[in-house]
Amino acid sequence: MVSAILEEIKKTIVHGLPPRVQVAKVEFEGPEVVIYTKNPEIITENGDLIRDLAKDIRKRIIIRSDRSVLSEPEKAIAKIHEIVPEEAKITNISFDEVTCEVIIEARKPGLVIGKYGSTSREIVKKIGWAPKILRTPPISSEIIQRIRRTLRHNSKERKKILQELGNRIHQGIKYENDWTRLTSMGGFREVGRSCLFLQTPNSRVLLDCGVNVAGGDEKSSYPFLNVPEFVLDDLDAVIISHAHLDHSGFLPYLYHYGYEGPVYCTTPTRDLMTLLQLDHIDIAHREDEPLPFNVKHVKKSVKHTITLDYGEVTDIAPDIRLTLHNSGHILGSAMSHMHIGDGQHNMVYTGDFKYERSRLLETAVTKFPRIETLVMESTYGGHEDVQPSRNTAEKELMKTIYHTLRRGGKILIPVFAVGRAQELMIVLEEYMRNGLIEDVPIYIDGMIWEANAIHTARPEYLSKDLRDQIFHMGRNPFISEVFHKVNGLDERKSIVEGEPSIILSTSGMLTGGNSVEYFKWLCGDERNSLVFVGYQAEGSLGRRIQKGWKEIPLKEEGKTKVFHVNMGIKTIEGFSGHSDRRQLMDYVRRLSPKPEKILICHGDNYKTLDLASSLYRSYKIETKTPMNLETVRIQ
Amino acid sequence: MVSAILEEIKKTIVHGLPPRVQVAKVEFEGPEVVIYTKNPEIITENGDLIRDLAKDIRKRIIIRSDRSVLSEPEKAIAKIHEIVPEEAKITNISFDEVTCEVIIEARKPGLVIGKYGSTSREIVKKIGWAPKILRTPPISSEIIQRIRRTLRHNSKERKKILQELGNRIHQGIKYENDWTRLTSMGGFREVGRSCLFLQTPNSRVLLDCGVNVAGGDEKSSYPFLNVPEFVLDDLDAVIISHAHLDHSGFLPYLYHYGYEGPVYCTTPTRDLMTLLQLDHIDIAHREDEPLPFNVKHVKKSVKHTITLDYGEVTDIAPDIRLTLHNSGHILGSAMSHMHIGDGQHNMVYTGDFKYERSRLLETAVTKFPRIETLVMESTYGGHEDVQPSRNTAEKELMKTIYHTLRRGGKILIPVFAVGRAQELMIVLEEYMRNGLIEDVPIYIDGMIWEANAIHTARPEYLSKDLRDQIFHMGRNPFISEVFHKVNGLDERKSIVEGEPSIILSTSGMLTGGNSVEYFKWLCGDERNSLVFVGYQAEGSLGRRIQKGWKEIPLKEEGKTKVFHVNMGIKTIEGFSGHSDRRQLMDYVRRLSPKPEKILICHGDNYKTLDLASSLYRSYKIETKTPMNLETVRIQ
Repeated sequence: MVSAILEEIKKTIVHGLPPRVQVAKVEFEGPEVVIYTKNPEIITENGDLIRDLAKDIRKRIIIRSDRSVLSEPEKAIAKIHEIVPEEAKITNISFDEVTCEVIIEARKPGLVIGKYGSTSREIVKKIGWAPKILRTPPISSEIIQRIRRTLRHNSKERKKILQELGNRIHQGIKYENDWTRLTSMGGFREVGRSCLFLQTPNSRVLLDCGVNVAGGDEKSSYPFLNVPEFVLDDLDAVIISHAHLDHSGFLPYLYHYGYEGPVYCTTPTRDLMTLLQLDHIDIAHREDEPLPFNVKHVKKSVKHTITLDYGEVTDIAPDIRLTLHNSGHILGSAMSHMHIGDGQHNMVYTGDFKYERSRLLETAVTKFPRIETLVMESTYGGHEDVQPSRNTAEKELMKTIYHTLRRGGKILIPVFAVGRAQELMIVLEEYMRNGLIEDVPIYIDGMIWEANAIHTARPEYLSKDLRDQIFHMGRNPFISEVFHKVNGLDERKSIVEGEPSIILSTSGMLTGGNSVEYFKWLCGDERNSLVFVGYQAEGSLGRRIQKGWKEIPLKEEGKTKVFHVNMGIKTIEGFSGHSDRRQLMDYVRRLSPKPEKILICHGDNYKTLDLASSLYRSYKIETKTPMNLETVRIQ
Repeated sequence: MVSAILEEIKKTIVHGLPPRVQVAKVEFEGPEVVIYTKNPEIITENGDLIRDLAKDIRKRIIIRSDRSVLSEPEKAIAKIHEIVPEEAKITNISFDEVTCEVIIEARKPGLVIGKYGSTSREIVKKIGWAPKILRTPPISSEIIQRIRRTLRHNSKERKKILQELGNRIHQGIKYENDWTRLTSMGGFREVGRSCLFLQTPNSRVLLDCGVNVAGGDEKSSYPFLNVPEFVLDDLDAVIISHAHLDHSGFLPYLYHYGYEGPVYCTTPTRDLMTLLQLDHIDIAHREDEPLPFNVKHVKKSVKHTITLDYGEVTDIAPDIRLTLHNSGHILGSAMSHMHIGDGQHNMVYTGDFKYERSRLLETAVTKFPRIETLVMESTYGGHEDVQPSRNTAEKELMKTIYHTLRRGGKILIPVFAVGRAQELMIVLEEYMRNGLIEDVPIYIDGMIWEANAIHTARPEYLSKDLRDQIFHMGRNPFISEVFHKVNGLDERKSIVEGEPSIILSTSGMLTGGNSVEYFKWLCGDERNSLVFVGYQAEGSLGRRIQKGWKEIPLKEEGKTKVFHVNMGIKTIEGFSGHSDRRQLMDYVRRLSPKPEKILICHGDNYKTLDLASSLYRSYKIETKTPMNLETVRIQ
């Protein structure tokens, strides 16, 4: 079956290319078709040709050089330096013998590509190796380096993985696609452990695989992978909507238990979730409550990840085409559009989404080619969940900072490392640059800095305003000198004893990490302020302080000590990465085309039901609110 | 695990029995505990002892004799004839070497049992063999004979099956029972191919496994056994609610594809469904559209069947206790009450049910120890589905018969072999006996006669009135001489050419069988009447005639011939074996205790939804109307 399909494609390709192009080999590599040729330069010179071919065969095409035309690596390096202007600031060049690619890392990758790709075409023409151009982040990222290293060192294994996957995807349809089902395996009528299982007669796909970090035990923390229809061996693909652990945290477990298939997500999601997963393992280890998987399985997951850009249509199973679209929640967060069968059904899983432009990201996408079923989140789905505007929230924050600094105090803002931290940094940088808040040091502590590095490595995923600022005005707020990275305990102590300042530190709900240490040091002084900008879960220290607790028993040097809360406590709403109630309702109103059915997930029981009934009443669209472990037929 | 449980039970048994009882062996045999003893007479003499023991260990107990105490078969036979009074009319005695039982078939089994079991106790005391007493039907039944023969000849294999099953049932619970799910595999939002799949963390049970005989192709005829959660190897049990093919017709397929587990149902259900399954295979074979299984698989299913009486509580899985209750639909039809886990959940699946006493059967049971989830049928669930009373229906029938006979015509009543046929026979017999209709022959053609035989073999399943009539007044309407069995074509022809008469013949919807032949012979004469007493499905010849078609093209001797309908056409409602709309509503009102949730099945889309919303509005009980392939969590 596979070979017949491949033969067909090969014929189309040979027929579609100019006769002087020598096609050495055509093969599947994951969802893509790879053409090996002795004249890569001819093809790459003509972008339209490839675009038309890709359209014809309805597959993504990669051009690679045949081994016979490759230059010696040393000569190739010299040639690259000759061709690429110095301002590109190349930081590393390496060769992938398996894929015949040269990997060029540069501070300004645009200059390696050149206008309309002219420079990179020149490279392939001169040295044979096809250039794969990566951005060297302006802040060095350990995670990105590790991931790139892993992929480089396992190039052969990865090629094998991709070839096997390619064969699986292209094996053709066995059964008529006369039904499509969704089983809720986690994150329905609750927030946490998001996990949705899509089944057709031909394939099985998992959408998200999260953990509930606030869950008390295994039973409430992990998705229901023991649901009878879920058989790991039969799984075709996993899609991760975004990096937060409640959507990605249980992915390594699948690899631990023998999953050998692919994970699809955006590049920032891969990088950020790797960061968060490793941190999760680390924390669990330190707290002596190890997770049921380890670093090895995170690495295995990286090796099996296929990154997709927004808008890239990709076959992920014989009968499913996936396209990711911006969901506006955090860097790289995506809505998954699935085209099932030969047009039998189209569904969109929103993941977490923000239907409002933030400083960091564009707003969630509302236009799709087709959509029969929508699965949407409802974190703020209650009718009372209307939040102040971003503007009001920012003003409130500035006011608090202003007053605290004026009385000589310090401001502690506990933040989650990915998302809110970066959003706040952009706000603070702008206000400080414009003189709207006093020029004091802003300290960035914990994993935030690493997350920043990943943000700066992927500016193409940021909002247009921010991109313009970075590329055209040369002003990257993440590397602004108003921010100071905190290294170690001594520095922390001197910050606490020093002049007025602003401190951003993890964890966001004071459930551990350095934010708790800062709190212990700062809480006694009434000049200081503690500012909450994110959701504080029931049971967290943050929530207790919000409720007005004034005496907090906490461990210090092994002993429990009572801390008296004298500092000012302030909660500022409106910075959330989730759509509030109005935005959720508006999103469905603006969605085009209208879905026939909406399933509601990712919300407390009451909020799920409240949003469902409001959507039905307002738009007369059938809504469903399945519980975990239920299966809904969508076609 | 099993051995530990068995050890515990053995201890309780030895402790609970008088010291002079020598317990040779205790073992599991399917859901039952079998005690082998050298003094079976001591135990059987004391019924309370066993009852108390059974209560203690919460299992059903069977007493069997140790091989060492068995008499020679020849001597045993002589002894039995000595002990049992002649009036019992023993027709057969055979010995089961595997179970050490003597199987005594008699016309009056009550006399073999004796008052409070005195005679059967006497037998075991004298010959060692434990008597298993079966009724010899007053009408000889080929099916019952075949089934008894199959079980006798495969006694050893069956014992092995039961022992393996016993071990599986008693293996103990592996996982906490924190959820229970139901997957609709057929018969939801439709009538036909009923199939419901119950899953807990510890076990999987299939409730019914039917075919849609009116389904055009495989896709619409058979249940969705390809649903991902259904894995034949993992199935613990199948329960068949009643014998009709839309509930039992696909059972042999499971055995064809490797199922080795048990089927639970009442004895009449086993006998009737075997009859209908064999007939189905036969018809399909004749029509050259063979089914995906054959007679071998029906036989395999018989060997794996465990019959239960109404009210008998039985472990069918480590965490599920099943009790069957009368559902009033046809002989042996049952509602399944499932007690799940350690009281976590109780559900009732009604199967098809009649909430009204008929002449044949008592009304459906409404009292259960506990019930959280009810799954109920909705065949007549539309608010317009109110049927005339039984009385009105009977009068209507008599009127039609009276007028037809008076004008010298014949009455053709197409009936389904099981259920309506017997109900009508009782009515006709009574009216004729009381002189309310003229004394003409009533011809019974087709499989009805065999179904009658099964009815007469199981009088304990009939209504109290009918039982009284049979046992106390010695008047069994099924063997009344007003009925004449039709044998072969010649007899049929002479009936048609003969005097006025009443003819009951299958099939019930004129979709084949002899009723169509009679129709062809009788339709031209305007003195004759065609009376419909059952549901005529869309697409059937019956429905077309009901609609008023007057020219019917039908095959005769290989050629298509047009038949002109001159005979009178009459449809009489009110004989249905299904509850009408009022009875469905009443049933839920009277149900005790009230369920928390109701799932509606076995009804056209509109009727399902109509009944669900009426039930919700009337009783404020949550109702659900899943589609096929959906899964609902009930706990």
